[in-house]
Amino acid sequence: MNTFDAGHYDVIVIGAGHAGVEAGLAAARRGAKTLMLTLNLDMIAFMPCNPSIGGPAKGVVVREIDALGGEMAKVIDKTYIQMRLLNTRKGPAVRALRAQADKHLYIQEMKKVIENEPNLTIRQGMVKELMVEDGVCKGVVTETKAAYTADSVIVTTGTFMRSKVLIGDLAYESGPNNQRASTDLSVQLEELGIKMVRFKTGTPMRVNSHSIDYSKTEIQPGDEVPRAFSYETTEYIMDQIPCWLTYTNEFTHKIIDDNLSSSAMYSGMVKGTGPRYCPSVEDKIVRFHDKPRHQVFLEPEGRNTEEVYVQGLSTSLPENVQKQMIETVPGLEKAEIMRAGYAIEYDSVIPTQLWPTLELKAVQGLFTAGQINGTSGYEEAAAQGLMAGINAASKVLDKEPVILDRSQAYIGVLIDDLVTKGTDEPYRLLTSRAEYRLILRHDNADLRLTDIGYEIGMISEDRYARFQDKKRMINEEIERLKGITIKATDQVQEVIQQAGGSPLKDAVNAYDLLKRPEMKYEMVASLLEEKKDLPEAVEEQVEIHTKYAGYIQKSEQQIERMRKMENKKIPEDIDYDDIHGIASEARDRLKEVRPLSVGQASRVSGVNPADVSILLVYIEQGKIAKVSGDEA
Amino acid sequence: MNTFDAGHYDVIVIGAGHAGVEAGLAAARRGAKTLMLTLNLDMIAFMPCNPSIGGPAKGVVVREIDALGGEMAKVIDKTYIQMRLLNTRKGPAVRALRAQADKHLYIQEMKKVIENEPNLTIRQGMVKELMVEDGVCKGVVTETKAAYTADSVIVTTGTFMRSKVLIGDLAYESGPNNQRASTDLSVQLEELGIKMVRFKTGTPMRVNSHSIDYSKTEIQPGDEVPRAFSYETTEYIMDQIPCWLTYTNEFTHKIIDDNLSSSAMYSGMVKGTGPRYCPSVEDKIVRFHDKPRHQVFLEPEGRNTEEVYVQGLSTSLPENVQKQMIETVPGLEKAEIMRAGYAIEYDSVIPTQLWPTLELKAVQGLFTAGQINGTSGYEEAAAQGLMAGINAASKVLDKEPVILDRSQAYIGVLIDDLVTKGTDEPYRLLTSRAEYRLILRHDNADLRLTDIGYEIGMISEDRYARFQDKKRMINEEIERLKGITIKATDQVQEVIQQAGGSPLKDAVNAYDLLKRPEMKYEMVASLLEEKKDLPEAVEEQVEIHTKYAGYIQKSEQQIERMRKMENKKIPEDIDYDDIHGIASEARDRLKEVRPLSVGQASRVSGVNPADVSILLVYIEQGKIAKVSGDEA
Repeated sequence: MNTFDAGHYDVIVIGAGHAGVEAGLAAARRGAKTLMLTLNLDMIAFMPCNPSIGGPAKGVVVREIDALGGEMAKVIDKTYIQMRLLNTRKGPAVRALRAQADKHLYIQEMKKVIENEPNLTIRQGMVKELMVEDGVCKGVVTETKAAYTADSVIVTTGTFMRSKVLIGDLAYESGPNNQRASTDLSVQLEELGIKMVRFKTGTPMRVNSHSIDYSKTEIQPGDEVPRAFSYETTEYIMDQIPCWLTYTNEFTHKIIDDNLSSSAMYSGMVKGTGPRYCPSVEDKIVRFHDKPRHQVFLEPEGRNTEEVYVQGLSTSLPENVQKQMIETVPGLEKAEIMRAGYAIEYDSVIPTQLWPTLELKAVQGLFTAGQINGTSGYEEAAAQGLMAGINAASKVLDKEPVILDRSQAYIGVLIDDLVTKGTDEPYRLLTSRAEYRLILRHDNADLRLTDIGYEIGMISEDRYARFQDKKRMINEEIERLKGITIKATDQVQEVIQQAGGSPLKDAVNAYDLLKRPEMKYEMVASLLEEKKDLPEAVEEQVEIHTKYAGYIQKSEQQIERMRKMENKKIPEDIDYDDIHGIASEARDRLKEVRPLSVGQASRVSGVNPADVSILLVYIEQGKIAKVSGDEA
Repeated sequence: MNTFDAGHYDVIVIGAGHAGVEAGLAAARRGAKTLMLTLNLDMIAFMPCNPSIGGPAKGVVVREIDALGGEMAKVIDKTYIQMRLLNTRKGPAVRALRAQADKHLYIQEMKKVIENEPNLTIRQGMVKELMVEDGVCKGVVTETKAAYTADSVIVTTGTFMRSKVLIGDLAYESGPNNQRASTDLSVQLEELGIKMVRFKTGTPMRVNSHSIDYSKTEIQPGDEVPRAFSYETTEYIMDQIPCWLTYTNEFTHKIIDDNLSSSAMYSGMVKGTGPRYCPSVEDKIVRFHDKPRHQVFLEPEGRNTEEVYVQGLSTSLPENVQKQMIETVPGLEKAEIMRAGYAIEYDSVIPTQLWPTLELKAVQGLFTAGQINGTSGYEEAAAQGLMAGINAASKVLDKEPVILDRSQAYIGVLIDDLVTKGTDEPYRLLTSRAEYRLILRHDNADLRLTDIGYEIGMISEDRYARFQDKKRMINEEIERLKGITIKATDQVQEVIQQAGGSPLKDAVNAYDLLKRPEMKYEMVASLLEEKKDLPEAVEEQVEIHTKYAGYIQKSEQQIERMRKMENKKIPEDIDYDDIHGIASEARDRLKEVRPLSVGQASRVSGVNPADVSILLVYIEQGKIAKVSGDEA
C-alpha cells in the first residue's frame, strides 16, 4: 500500500469504546505518548446496549478501575440519572453500586476527558492493517494510508470485527447501531495465526416514553443518599430519575413460542455463542419454560431524551413479532418502538492466546482488550482496557508488567479466567467466580489497589496522601477500640438492648463489643468518652474489619497458600514434552496456555492436581540442574 | 422481498437531517400521521460540516422557517455558543443573524422535540426500496423488511446517496463522518427515470483546542446584546464563547500548490461539481492566485468539547499534506488534527424534475428535499424540508399546496430557483439571488409569513394573537407619528444637531422627521409629549417602514407586476408543440420544467422575452377558445 509516514507513538489504541478509552488514558497517564484511533469521534464510550454501569461484581470492578487511576467511575459519577447500592441487606461481600447512565452525557464527558489528557491524541480513522514484522507489531496503517509506527498496539474493537446484525431471517454486515463494521483487521489477525471464535450478543428494543402507560408498572427509584463510584467524587447528583418494572406473561410467552422458528437465534442463522447470563427473551422462554413471568425493567436512556431501554426483552425475533410481543406486556400495550432489538455476531480472539498482561503470545507488542477477548459488559471491557494500557506502557517505559492476582481484584479474576481458562461463551464477571469475594469488596477497592495505582504513576500525590490518611485512621481507630474497656453500665445495656442484643455479663473492650452482630460502629462510638469525628468511609471500614476479622483472616491464609503457588514461576523456556508422567491433555493445554506460574498452571482446564505435582517436581529439579550446570 | 406489513402512515420521511426533521415536524404539526426513518437515531440533525447556522440570506431563511412554524430557529436559540447580527452598519436588507452552534446539544434538543411531537414517530432503520406502482409512490420498505404504506414519501437523504469519501488519491464508500452510505435508493430513483447528477462537497479538518496558540490569532466574540432567531424565544444565552481568526500565507499556498496534483479535487478523482461559494482551500489558491492570504476562522464545535472547526481550510488533499499545510498557519503550528478534511461525492436529483411543491413530476406522492436536490447548507435543507412536509401534508389532508413566491420569502427564491432554473453546482442561497431583498428582510420574516403559518395550522392561537398585536402596534404608531407636528423648538434643533443633521426650517410631522437619515426612532420619540412603551421590535419596524417607505413602495409595485405574471397560470395540459413561433430551445426547456405560470416560465433558462410574449398570447387565445368551446 502506498502509505505515508504519519509519525511515531509509544502506544496506539485502536477503538474508543469502554476498553479503548481506559487503555488510551492509562498509557498516556503512565507517560507513554499515545494515539487513539476511532471510527467515529461522536461515539466515544458509547453504550450500545443497556444504559447502566455497575451491578454485582461489575460495580466492584468500576471501583477497582478508579483505585488504579482509571476513568469509568469518575465519568459515570458525573452523568448518572440514578444510583443504587445493591444488596444492602446482605453482607458487604455482595454489595455493589449500580448506576443508570445518561448515554449521551457519558459520551460527552468521556470525550472531554480524553481531549484534555496530556500525552494523548485522539483521531478519527479506520485501521486497515497492523504492521507486523517477524512476529513483532510495529504500528498500524489507516484506511487513509496514514502509517503510524508504535512500540505497542492495543486492539479494542469490541463487537465490530466482521460484525453482522441479525433480526428474524435477516442478516447484514454492520457494527452496533448501524456503524460501519471492521473486516480487514479480523482477516489479518487470522493470517497472523490468531485463533478466532464467533460470539453473539443482543439488545432489546427502545421505545418512546410517551407511549408507555407507567400506571401499570412499579416505580424503581434511585437511593436517596449520596452515592458515588469514584473515591475522588465529592459532588453527588441528587436529582434522580426513576426506572419502572413490569413483567412478561403467558401471552408474551405464547407469541415468542409461536415464532421461535423465525428468531435468528433459533432458526440456525446465528452461528455464534451467546452470553448465558444476559440471555435473549427467547432463550429465557425456552430455558425456563415453566416460569410464568420475567421481569422487564424500563430504563430511561438519559435525562434529555424520551428513549427508554426495555431491559429483559433482548431479542432477534423479526420486527413485527417484536411489536406483537411487546404489546402483551402491561404498560407497553401501545409502545412505540424507536429502535428494534437485534442480535449481533462478531469475531473474538480466543483469550488463552494472551499473556496475563493481555499481550498476544504470537505477536509481540500487540495487545487485545475488551469484548474482542470474548467478554461481555462495559465494565469487563474497561478493566481489560485499563490493564492493557498499563502494560503496554510498562513495555515501552521498560517497567515491570502489572498483573493482578485473583486475591487482589475482580480484575485479576477476570483476566486470569480469560487467559488461563478461556471462555466458550461471552464471559461475564460474577461474584461466584471469585474465591476471595469477602476480600474483593466494593468498599475496600481503594485499600486493595491504590498503592499499585500510585506506584505506576496513575494516582496523584494529593490523592495518595488522602488515601494514606484514611488507612491510618482506620488502623488507629481499630487499635483505639481494642484499648477501651466498656463496662456493663445501664446506659450500655440499654443501647445493646435497643439494638436487639443480649445484655453484657462483663466488661468488654469496645472492639469486641463491635464484633457482636447487632452492634453498629456508631452505637459503640456513642458509648465512648472521647468522640472521634471520622469520615463515614473510615467508620465503615472499622466496622467491617472488626466484624469480619475472623473470616478475613481465614481468607488471607488461603491467599497466602495461593500466592506461594503463584510465586513458583515456570521458566519461559520450559519444554513440556520433556516432563515425564504428565497427562497428555494437560501437556497439550499447558503448551497452549503457557502459564507463568504453577498457580496459573493449576487453573488451566484439563490440568489435574497430579499433573501439578509432577510439574512442581520438574521445576524444582530443573532449578537444581541449572544451578549445577552453572557450577560445572 | 419477503416483507411484513408494518402499518400505514399519512407521510413518511426518509432521513432525519436538517431537511428531514423539518419535514417530519411540519407534516405532523399539520395533522398528518407521520413516520420518520433514520439510519442513526444518535445523529438526528447532525451538522457534518461547520458548527454554525445563519449568515447572509441563510439567517433570514431561519427566521422564515420560524414564522412558518418550523423548528430550526428555536433549537439553535437554545444551543448556540455565540450569536452575532451581521452587517449592522449596512442597511436592514443585508442584516442577518449568525450563530455558532453546539453540535451535540443541537442534536439532543432536536431529538427531544421530535420525540415529544404528537402524530410523529421516529424509528431507526435503513430504507432499501420505495414502493412505486404506476407512477405513484405508496410507501417504503426497510432493510429489515418492514413495509410501511403511506400517502406521501419525502426523501431527505442529504449526501448519503452513493456517497464516496475522497482524500488525496483515496476513495471509499462512506457517508459523512464514517456513516453507512445509502446505495439502493439512488439506483431505484434512476430506474424510475429520475435524472441524477454527481455533486461534491467538502469539509476541513478539526483540531484540538489545546494544540492552538490563540495568542497568534484575533478574537471574534459574540454580540453582547441578547439575540435570537425565533420570534418565540424569550430566554437568551449570554454566556458566549469566542471564535478566533487567523490567516493562510505564502507558505501555506506553496504547500498547496506543490501538492495540487495529489488533491482529490485536482487529480481528476472527484467527478462531481463542487460548491462555488464554499470552495476548498485548493480552489481558493487556484482561483485567486494573487491573493496573499485567506481568512481561517477557528470555531469551537461546542461548549463541552475541545474540538475546533478550521473554517476556510476545507480540503481533499492527502492527510500528510493537510498536516504540513495547517502547520504554516499562525496559531496552528502545532495543531493536532482530530478529524482530517475530506471531499464527499454523492448523487443528487436534478431539481427541475420537481414541482414547486417539491413533489417529483414523474412519481406522484414522492417528494425530495434538502441536499438531495442539489443545494448546500443546513438552512437551505431545512427550508426545503419544511415546505415538502407542509405540501406532503396538504396532499394527504386534501388542502391547497403552499408555494411561496419570490417576493414572499427567500424560501420562495430558493425553491423557484431550483425547480425553474435548476443548478449546475451545489446551490447556495445569496442575497443577490433575490430581486426583492429590501422586502425579504430578517426583521420582518414574521410580518411576511406568520399569516401563512397560522393558516396552515403551524402557528398557535396564542402566538398568532401576539403577532397581530405587534402588527397593530406598528401601524398605529406610524399613523400616530404622521399626525403629530413637531415645531422647530430649541430642544428639537438640539436633538437634530446632536444626531448630525441640519436644523429644521419649519415644523414637520414626526413621521417625516423620522425619515431623515440621521434620525432614530428613539430620538423622535423623545420629542413627543405622549410616551409609548413599545416593544423594541415594534420600534424597529416603525423606523424601517418610515425610512424606507419609498423603496418599499417601489419594490411593492414591482412585486405587483411580477404577481400578475405569476397569476397567469399555464394550463397543466398545455401542448408546447402546438405553439408556433416559440424558439426550439425554449420549447424544449418549457416541456422539461412544465412551469405553473407565465411568471415561472419567464425565468426558465433559455426562455427569452419574445417566447414569453408568444406564450402569453397563446394562453389568452386558449382561454378564449376554451370559453367559446364551453359556450358552444
